[in-house]
Amino acid sequence: MFQSFEDSATPQQGPARLEALRSEMTAAGVDAFLVPRADAHQGEYVSAHDERLSWLTGFTGSAGWCVALATRAGVFVDGRYRVQVRAQVADVFEPVDWPEVSLGDWIAEALPKGVVGFDPWLLSLDQQRALAAKLGDHELRSCDNLIDSIWSDQPAPPMGEAFAQPVELAGEPHEAKIKRLAADLKADAAIITLPDSIAWLLNIRGRDIARNPVPHGFAILHKKGRVSLFIAQDKVTSLGDHFGDLVDLNPVDAFLPAVQNLTGRVQIDPATCPVIVADLLSDTIEAQDPCLLPKARKNDAELSGSRAAHLRDAAAMVRFLSWLETQTGGEFTEIDVVQRLEAERRATNALRDISFETISGAGPNGAIVHYRVTNTSNRTVENNQLLLVDSGGQYVDGTTDITRTVVVGTPTQEERRAFTLVLKGMIAISRLRFPTGLAGRDMDVLARTALWQDGLDYGHGTGHGVGAYLSVHEGPQRLASTGTVPFEAGMILSNEPGFYKEGAFGIRIENLIAVQDAPALPGQTVPHMLRFETLTWVPIDTRLVNPTLLTEDERDWLNSYHAEVEVRVSPLVEGAAKDWLSRACRAI
Amino acid sequence: MFQSFEDSATPQQGPARLEALRSEMTAAGVDAFLVPRADAHQGEYVSAHDERLSWLTGFTGSAGWCVALATRAGVFVDGRYRVQVRAQVADVFEPVDWPEVSLGDWIAEALPKGVVGFDPWLLSLDQQRALAAKLGDHELRSCDNLIDSIWSDQPAPPMGEAFAQPVELAGEPHEAKIKRLAADLKADAAIITLPDSIAWLLNIRGRDIARNPVPHGFAILHKKGRVSLFIAQDKVTSLGDHFGDLVDLNPVDAFLPAVQNLTGRVQIDPATCPVIVADLLSDTIEAQDPCLLPKARKNDAELSGSRAAHLRDAAAMVRFLSWLETQTGGEFTEIDVVQRLEAERRATNALRDISFETISGAGPNGAIVHYRVTNTSNRTVENNQLLLVDSGGQYVDGTTDITRTVVVGTPTQEERRAFTLVLKGMIAISRLRFPTGLAGRDMDVLARTALWQDGLDYGHGTGHGVGAYLSVHEGPQRLASTGTVPFEAGMILSNEPGFYKEGAFGIRIENLIAVQDAPALPGQTVPHMLRFETLTWVPIDTRLVNPTLLTEDERDWLNSYHAEVEVRVSPLVEGAAKDWLSRACRAI
Repeated sequence: MFQSFEDSATPQQGPARLEALRSEMTAAGVDAFLVPRADAHQGEYVSAHDERLSWLTGFTGSAGWCVALATRAGVFVDGRYRVQVRAQVADVFEPVDWPEVSLGDWIAEALPKGVVGFDPWLLSLDQQRALAAKLGDHELRSCDNLIDSIWSDQPAPPMGEAFAQPVELAGEPHEAKIKRLAADLKADAAIITLPDSIAWLLNIRGRDIARNPVPHGFAILHKKGRVSLFIAQDKVTSLGDHFGDLVDLNPVDAFLPAVQNLTGRVQIDPATCPVIVADLLSDTIEAQDPCLLPKARKNDAELSGSRAAHLRDAAAMVRFLSWLETQTGGEFTEIDVVQRLEAERRATNALRDISFETISGAGPNGAIVHYRVTNTSNRTVENNQLLLVDSGGQYVDGTTDITRTVVVGTPTQEERRAFTLVLKGMIAISRLRFPTGLAGRDMDVLARTALWQDGLDYGHGTGHGVGAYLSVHEGPQRLASTGTVPFEAGMILSNEPGFYKEGAFGIRIENLIAVQDAPALPGQTVPHMLRFETLTWVPIDTRLVNPTLLTEDERDWLNSYHAEVEVRVSPLVEGAAKDWLSRACRAI
Repeated sequence: MFQSFEDSATPQQGPARLEALRSEMTAAGVDAFLVPRADAHQGEYVSAHDERLSWLTGFTGSAGWCVALATRAGVFVDGRYRVQVRAQVADVFEPVDWPEVSLGDWIAEALPKGVVGFDPWLLSLDQQRALAAKLGDHELRSCDNLIDSIWSDQPAPPMGEAFAQPVELAGEPHEAKIKRLAADLKADAAIITLPDSIAWLLNIRGRDIARNPVPHGFAILHKKGRVSLFIAQDKVTSLGDHFGDLVDLNPVDAFLPAVQNLTGRVQIDPATCPVIVADLLSDTIEAQDPCLLPKARKNDAELSGSRAAHLRDAAAMVRFLSWLETQTGGEFTEIDVVQRLEAERRATNALRDISFETISGAGPNGAIVHYRVTNTSNRTVENNQLLLVDSGGQYVDGTTDITRTVVVGTPTQEERRAFTLVLKGMIAISRLRFPTGLAGRDMDVLARTALWQDGLDYGHGTGHGVGAYLSVHEGPQRLASTGTVPFEAGMILSNEPGFYKEGAFGIRIENLIAVQDAPALPGQTVPHMLRFETLTWVPIDTRLVNPTLLTEDERDWLNSYHAEVEVRVSPLVEGAAKDWLSRACRAI
């Protein structure tokens, strides 16, 4: 079982650890110390070694900061975690609404002047600048990580073995990627610190953190068409001669000296480059990590792989949903749901990991957008309740992410109406044809207008980028009001509008979609258009659909979708699952 | 008749005038001279005195530049005018695709170094900065206007009499506006150079330029709650004691000395502040003209006035459209259409001006988005042709802007389909409810998706702001991908999607709409929503609608709209017009 249901928060340890940290701060001569959730690679998941924020405070969310002062300590969490943080941290920590309140503003108010210490591996250049802009009267000082000094049983950094991603699945030899990116480089070298960028560029995967199949390391892409990789030797021994002539292998310790010895102009991404790296460079160009866009534009092999992974995953989902239909309200729990679903995915014999912790929310728990079921929160799924299940798998050929909301028993009219409005938004994105040049923010509205007509909305973006056997949340494109990167053929996105009635129910419907060129129509006047290919083929619960609220086009889309689901998935399932699938795919 | 049909371009004069300008340039010691279309007030319409660009080059478009060098002369025009400019200017002028090619880039390429002269009244601070950023090796030099030096019969600056806008229509005494804006001012004074800002702030209107009822002048808003107005004394004598105690009157010549004598911090809007003004100030805050947003948020009196003006205008439009139905294809022209429409508006006895030159485009002329019919271009309206008529009136209580596309005879299936897709977009905006905080760029897409599904689109924004007996094009809000100003209750916008098939036909359907608070619905979870009130009540040609392409909601909207048109407008018309209205408003 990949997923665990433990309550990992340990608020009772917080006060003593905070006092120990304050002693270290005094010894180090700093008046404030920053403890980010992030590691040096700025990813969403971190290794046990890097769980400093949760070790100190008890807060286990996927983003946040603690700012420790001599007499106060703020824990900065965003809208997803405002309830959770209060349950997880002791009274000595003050929850702060972030990013509405910035770290800099809070510090400036709480500490009119003084020395603010931070670990320069864990702060990006942009983050340092944002702080400096607010803290004119303070000294921002790099120092040792004071948590590491007091965390006596801190786990060692991860040492997962890396392995090659077959070129048939990657679709392009890593030598070709290196040459292509090097040729486009405007600088003499580029620093790459994002693990999924390195994994993509070198066609490798790793086991250093949960959910994301990446190795931890650093890389320098040289304009002359070579890559220097800095990674623990033990992680790559089994890779043999995968790397070939264009990659030189170096221990991690050699990274900073190598950065220091670079000549010419060096490209860094200020959004993710650690301060300790940026501080070594004098002649820099700031630009986005050069792997981000090429990685986002999936090639044919990656798209084929993703289609295969999605079909495999769809069969597991169908088996799971047909099992779910046999369950009786009041007699199974959210954890039962997670376990059964993971078991179905494991039964494919192809599951490398789940792609994130499954969200299984019954009734009111479905309305908690980033709910993770634990032994404490676990709720029995009652009759006449909605169940929201958001989950995904990591397969060697692709990463999946799917949400289905189903009713156990009979839905209310309110639930059916809300579900249908969410579905209308999801269909509007699925059906869209659009000119090139448009970004997520230009079309996010299409997923919301039906809800808006009823005065409803949802408090998250409509979709995020997804990797190819890489991170389930991948940039730079987003289908959201904050998404400014134009969509290009090959980009994979989620399409997941929702509606959440606090204390009552939650609805989300999510397919993955891939941007593709739209063949020109007769009479077309727009020179070049794009559309979305659907990757996810799993029935949507039609018991929750009110057909009178759908337009003819929307109903046609839904019926065609289900017809295609049956054609594609029926050969992959048997028995009760096959029967259930046939019923679930009936036209409405 | 307000509108004229003359071909005002005089390309044959251009070469001699350009040579005269070059002599002046030599005498003034400049290697390049900039001739913008704009005047010192950066408006869309300029007085005859300021028509320097068309006098020099023959180009009569509403935006553009000429850059004269010793051996070359570029005429910079945007996408609307690329065909027109070739017909209007002599060979000595090179048309340049602007803004794709910036003035700075073109100059840098054509003149590697040298002195670039410009009239500092006519260049805004932003424009100067954009040039300076591209012209590092050049000297940008303020100088006399070299066109004025050679234009022997240049008309005098306009001396139209200003007059008061009744407070019952303005909705707020100008003293209250002055106090309100002064209280919000972050500086000790603000420079105001936009004529419609001054007109709005002081509740006056003017006669200095066609189409826009504004006087030319300058103003300084003082933090202490006073306004210094700089305007020719003759323009304001008839205003008597309208201005009262908070406004001091000064001759225009006193403006620059007064700016120079300002103490403290002065607010300027770099988008519109002339360089000559900005150069006099050392301690400035740059911010948007403080009148723009308050002027855009129409108050109840302005909205009531606009509703009244729109009903009056609708009656004129209905009389015009009923006349149009009696015309036989092949026996009337585009100019006949313009004349009849203006005559109907004049017959209201309330028309102060048309709000812009009526666009009357038959068949292929309808596909020219900014077409203005002249005696030369005038086309007979043939049977089985579409006719696009975009027009508006200036009334004391409001400014109107409406486009209707009608068929003379029988439309093709292609025309009906395209018309219906355009209508779907127009209805999508009309029906929308949306949360506060959204700007035009967040919803522009809704007017296009139906067209996109057929591979069609239109090359202009969906809508612009409209004034209250002021400019028909008014900022800062726009319903377009470039519109970043959040919509607020009271803002008036146009809603005018279209489709243009080059060489064949043009379609545009335009209503004005006003943003208003949307009363909360039962169960609404979004805290505060907005919607659009329709202001324009004129039948849409249902002979061009293919009902099978409409959803039920769309058809309901159209039928409700027509039912309301008949209820509102029928009492205002008689005889044949009344009968026509009744037929035109039939449900489909």
